[in-house]
Amino acid sequence: MIKIIVDCFGGDRCPEAPIEGALAALAKTPDLHVILSGDKNVIGKHLEGREYDASRLEIMHAPEVIGCDEKPTDVVRLKRNSSMMKGIIELRDNDDVAALVSVGSTGALVTGALVRLGRIPGVIRPAFCPILPCMDGSVVGICDSGANVEVTSAHLRQFAIMASLYMENVYGVQKPRVALLNVGKEAEKGDEMRREAYSLLGETECVNFVGNMESRDLLSGSYDVVVADGFSGNVLVKTTEGTAIELLKKLKKDIYSRFVYKMGALLMKRMFMEEKEFMNYQNYGGSVLLGTSKVVVKGHGSSNATAVEKCIEQAYRMQISGLSSKIETEISKYDHYED
Amino acid sequence: MIKIIVDCFGGDRCPEAPIEGALAALAKTPDLHVILSGDKNVIGKHLEGREYDASRLEIMHAPEVIGCDEKPTDVVRLKRNSSMMKGIIELRDNDDVAALVSVGSTGALVTGALVRLGRIPGVIRPAFCPILPCMDGSVVGICDSGANVEVTSAHLRQFAIMASLYMENVYGVQKPRVALLNVGKEAEKGDEMRREAYSLLGETECVNFVGNMESRDLLSGSYDVVVADGFSGNVLVKTTEGTAIELLKKLKKDIYSRFVYKMGALLMKRMFMEEKEFMNYQNYGGSVLLGTSKVVVKGHGSSNATAVEKCIEQAYRMQISGLSSKIETEISKYDHYED
Repeated sequence: MIKIIVDCFGGDRCPEAPIEGALAALAKTPDLHVILSGDKNVIGKHLEGREYDASRLEIMHAPEVIGCDEKPTDVVRLKRNSSMMKGIIELRDNDDVAALVSVGSTGALVTGALVRLGRIPGVIRPAFCPILPCMDGSVVGICDSGANVEVTSAHLRQFAIMASLYMENVYGVQKPRVALLNVGKEAEKGDEMRREAYSLLGETECVNFVGNMESRDLLSGSYDVVVADGFSGNVLVKTTEGTAIELLKKLKKDIYSRFVYKMGALLMKRMFMEEKEFMNYQNYGGSVLLGTSKVVVKGHGSSNATAVEKCIEQAYRMQISGLSSKIETEISKYDHYED
Repeated sequence: MIKIIVDCFGGDRCPEAPIEGALAALAKTPDLHVILSGDKNVIGKHLEGREYDASRLEIMHAPEVIGCDEKPTDVVRLKRNSSMMKGIIELRDNDDVAALVSVGSTGALVTGALVRLGRIPGVIRPAFCPILPCMDGSVVGICDSGANVEVTSAHLRQFAIMASLYMENVYGVQKPRVALLNVGKEAEKGDEMRREAYSLLGETECVNFVGNMESRDLLSGSYDVVVADGFSGNVLVKTTEGTAIELLKKLKKDIYSRFVYKMGALLMKRMFMEEKEFMNYQNYGGSVLLGTSKVVVKGHGSSNATAVEKCIEQAYRMQISGLSSKIETEISKYDHYED
């Protein structure tokens, strides 16, 4: 039985989305056990009259609420009875529990996970790895995308190792093609740190390094993993999402501007709906935190039930694939210095 | 008369696109004089039989060709008779010449401009400022986007001043709203350098600083200038372009997948063509280099004649607006340290 904690009080649609997502995952996966973290009265009310396997669902009472403007460090220190922090502490202390899924504050989750959970032995810095859909139907993982705004080439090498293993073990990608985000393809592009990373990655046997990637080519399907510092990785991911959203909004607005366009769009309705689903980043699961001692998956704040369900699936697959111990084994083969 | 040199031997469609772009600009702007830089025989052949005001067009013979793989520093040192380098040297030495437009190698152009032209007094680092179209019909300038991969907060402040003046004087934007590219909106986001820049920008009177911008919001129309280090600014611009291109490609492919979609698309043909034009970054001119002692505009390597024409227009407007001396005046009001 794989036990996963679902933080029910974070994100724009809480607690409905986390609870419904958990119930959906529970129905699909026979050896999944979920622990719903949050106010037991509110959760209990939502579960009333619903059918589910009660032997595989429990509620962990965590009545404190995290405010929007609270500093991550304050949350970690002061809000130990919030659904997120209690979840993290339970994850740390209970050997039976495998993972935590949350759609709450990213800052609080990262800080809490780093401070309370600790890292896989050898990992210098855990990093976020969200997934984006490529135009050829494949997906690409971007690591890091926000957990570390300042990094060294040694960090980047570890991100490459962890994200490679993740894509291989959770998405079934054979020998993932790993690229370094840079301002040009040539080896000498970028700053000193990037040039160092370029050689380090080339020397790392378990990484199938294919060179620098220009951000223009992210969705081309030519790469399975893109390694970046958290700052530019964050820009890469959010710009892609933002551009796709703005373009679809514009298309919609323009369609409504003339009758003949509306007629045309009617014929293409199914295509546009498929396009929208394809571009809907919620369908691709959350951003996993790679390198923490236990599995943590962060869903988008606006996640609906399906998105939360995907995050739970991701956490489940990370756990059954034994990703953490594989990361530990590979990382141990390379020199690293502690932070 | 405003004299502008057009480098005719760079880019994917040379020399046709630069020459045709120059002729189009010449026909539209009565007080424009163009100097076509490149092999006089090839240029002469292209001009044969064409009608234009010969008193406002001259050819500067520069027979050397720059290879694709040549290092920028080698080009600057060794290829003084190439169309680009001769153009830069002529721009420096001839007081009558106002600007250079090139669609050739970015690296060679930046290096050449920095080494040979020098900077506006007070400017620490010249920076690129391309323009992207926002979904509400406005445009946004991103500075820097690749000339400086490593920067300080003092550099970022200068980028903000220069890009503000550029948007105001060349695009007529009143009190341009300036944002700092960051991983979140809150003042404390990002690294130390970003936090320093946040306070510096807030204290800079001639800059209408509106705070941090998340890359997701670039095309929202809420900002007129985005200030960034050259690395993440480059990621921001190229990811936007790449995502738009990939999405349009996917739409096109999907339309051809079913007959009924093709019918629908037929009704929407005009809309799709307008969409494509809207998204065509060539329509928005080149990436200007702000802070060099004379005006330099870099067009996209794939520029067609219209794109080159837009670049020439941009250079013309930069010159007649007296942008350089306005930059010098504003920059002089703030402490700065030389690089």
